Amino acid sequence: MYEGAVQDLIDELGRLPGVGPKSAQRIAFYVLASETEDVTRLAHALTEVKARVRFCEVCGNVAEAERCRICVDPRRDETVLCVVEEPKDVVVIERTREFRGCYHVLGGAINPIDGVGPEDLRIRELMTRLGDGQIEEVIIATDPNIEGEATATYLQRMLRGMGIAVSRLASGLPVGGDLEYADEVTLGRAFEGRRRVSD
Amino acid sequence: MYEGAVQDLIDELGRLPGVGPKSAQRIAFYVLASETEDVTRLAHALTEVKARVRFCEVCGNVAEAERCRICVDPRRDETVLCVVEEPKDVVVIERTREFRGCYHVLGGAINPIDGVGPEDLRIRELMTRLGDGQIEEVIIATDPNIEGEATATYLQRMLRGMGIAVSRLASGLPVGGDLEYADEVTLGRAFEGRRRVSD
Repeated sequence: MYEGAVQDLIDELGRLPGVGPKSAQRIAFYVLASETEDVTRLAHALTEVKARVRFCEVCGNVAEAERCRICVDPRRDETVLCVVEEPKDVVVIERTREFRGCYHVLGGAINPIDGVGPEDLRIRELMTRLGDGQIEEVIIATDPNIEGEATATYLQRMLRGMGIAVSRLASGLPVGGDLEYADEVTLGRAFEGRRRVSD
Repeated sequence: MYEGAVQDLIDELGRLPGVGPKSAQRIAFYVLASETEDVTRLAHALTEVKARVRFCEVCGNVAEAERCRICVDPRRDETVLCVVEEPKDVVVIERTREFRGCYHVLGGAINPIDGVGPEDLRIRELMTRLGDGQIEEVIIATDPNIEGEATATYLQRMLRGMGIAVSRLASGLPVGGDLEYADEVTLGRAFEGRRRVSD
């Protein structure tokens, strides 16, 4: 045990995800050796995030106003909606510059083990958005894992018969990877989704 | 890129040791989902450490006053000094409850690659402490790695001929380990330092 303030900081840091006791200690001593100015900036960034950031009332993405910057951007195509699990997925998709539509963030995926059911996700809000008839296509972009697949299947069922085109991201080989290192499921999906390139 | 405050926090967290971009993002979203009260406590712990913690003017350990709680404790044996690299080593040794003397924290180890020489460590302060004739034994407890060994060798040379008993921590097999998994150097040291248990 350290004296008061050092131990307090180690305890607080240890509560963060992915920060074990050793890392907490290492960070605490790093903080101790840092300039007061830098530490103040980190402390300020922490409190600012809680004070300024909220969730977009339309799509559920992180925002610093009632609506996020994507929802208020007039250049975005409001007829296409990409459904993702978390705000970080929006950032990943935005980085590709492939998608110019709008988003809907579910706030997680169906996970019975952790007790997350469809009613815990922003699915009701999605159905309300789809209700006004403006949206023509929904792209389901949940994670390619068990929870993400379960959520996608659930959404597909919900969206059936609404007159809205529903698509899912392609499964296949990651670009830049070796065939040799692909797992069988991915390789199987790549065969299944093969594209004809000539007659 | 996220909107303002979230990205600011990710940037600040990413500067901490052992926190990569993915962890920074994960912690930022954890913070966003935490109670304001908890986040305030973490921010406060950060600034408090810089405001309240300093280094003991006697031994170099972390302290919240001019001297650390070990240096002001009258029950500690002031004739035995244990020399360590970092304040965290003090905590580790204190946990054993084997040592009742005082400490001297060097603030690192000799490391030519990182440009750390003897003059960057608190060796001059150590020599001054030893100068008053009160200390009878010095236990060198630097890390059992290249830098720690180099520092120990340097200290042994400095302390020669001062009429002070100098010792080093025993090298050998870790308690609870398997002989099979011991590396050759450790096993070699264990043979070298073998203790006779009967005639």
